Amino acid sequence: MSLCLSDCPLCRDPVHAPPEAGVQLLLQRPLYRVVRVLDDAFPAFYRVIWQAHVAEFSDLEAAERRACMDAVIAVERALREQLQPRKVNLATLGNVVPHLHWHVIARFDWDSHFPAPIWAAAQRPADAAQLATLEQALPALDRAVLAALQTLPD
Amino acid sequence: MSLCLSDCPLCRDPVHAPPEAGVQLLLQRPLYRVVRVLDDAFPAFYRVIWQAHVAEFSDLEAAERRACMDAVIAVERALREQLQPRKVNLATLGNVVPHLHWHVIARFDWDSHFPAPIWAAAQRPADAAQLATLEQALPALDRAVLAALQTLPD
Repeated sequence: MSLCLSDCPLCRDPVHAPPEAGVQLLLQRPLYRVVRVLDDAFPAFYRVIWQAHVAEFSDLEAAERRACMDAVIAVERALREQLQPRKVNLATLGNVVPHLHWHVIARFDWDSHFPAPIWAAAQRPADAAQLATLEQALPALDRAVLAALQTLPD
Repeated sequence: MSLCLSDCPLCRDPVHAPPEAGVQLLLQRPLYRVVRVLDDAFPAFYRVIWQAHVAEFSDLEAAERRACMDAVIAVERALREQLQPRKVNLATLGNVVPHLHWHVIARFDWDSHFPAPIWAAAQRPADAAQLATLEQALPALDRAVLAALQTLPD
């Protein structure tokens, strides 16, 4: 397991470098970091990024997979408790950036794409009032996500 | 943890009912079944379907999540060994059918959507020769996936 400080956009000194663009850093851990993605259409969108440069989830050892998935589940549970989303979507794709990262996205029947995946074509404009309410909930949501993650070992 | 024999299309008697349409059943286990999705555009597409009706991965206990993810990883590893795909995509969305199932999809730079997710718009026609070669590899791939799953406890 090694850090790769090459041109991979997710490979950076996890302590000293600023996080990648378009995200809000929530937590740095030795094995992973957690960010919120600044996505206007899907505000309750978090990402668990494995610090070491591996492409596939099956590149991790069993204990590492467990640590990673425990973080994903902690985020998912915080989203469910805070927001009661219609669904949570989990995915690790990495076709563009093949550095292991998990998407954790709260979905709502009023969002622009539901029930399609967020990567599909939009079905409608999102409900603006619901979206505004969700935006306002983000500070409390971030705190709940962070608190859930902090119950996990380092 | 209970089976729900309602109108959920993924809830069916796991022993006696035929599998849902559009898939090839590979393996039935008490906790999950594994199918190959009959998708002309993405032939190396498997699904691990949790037998009990739960919507979210975080509805499972830790040991259940581990058993489920061990199956996902076994499929992923068989795909990597047999096909050397450009990437493997893992996702549990469930917006349309909120019954826990994991997609495990081998991706290739010649496929119709790469590097976009399979749910996005196609980028190009797939390379027909590569697609035909992949189709021919499916029987051996199914055997390898099944063998990998059979190394796991029931």
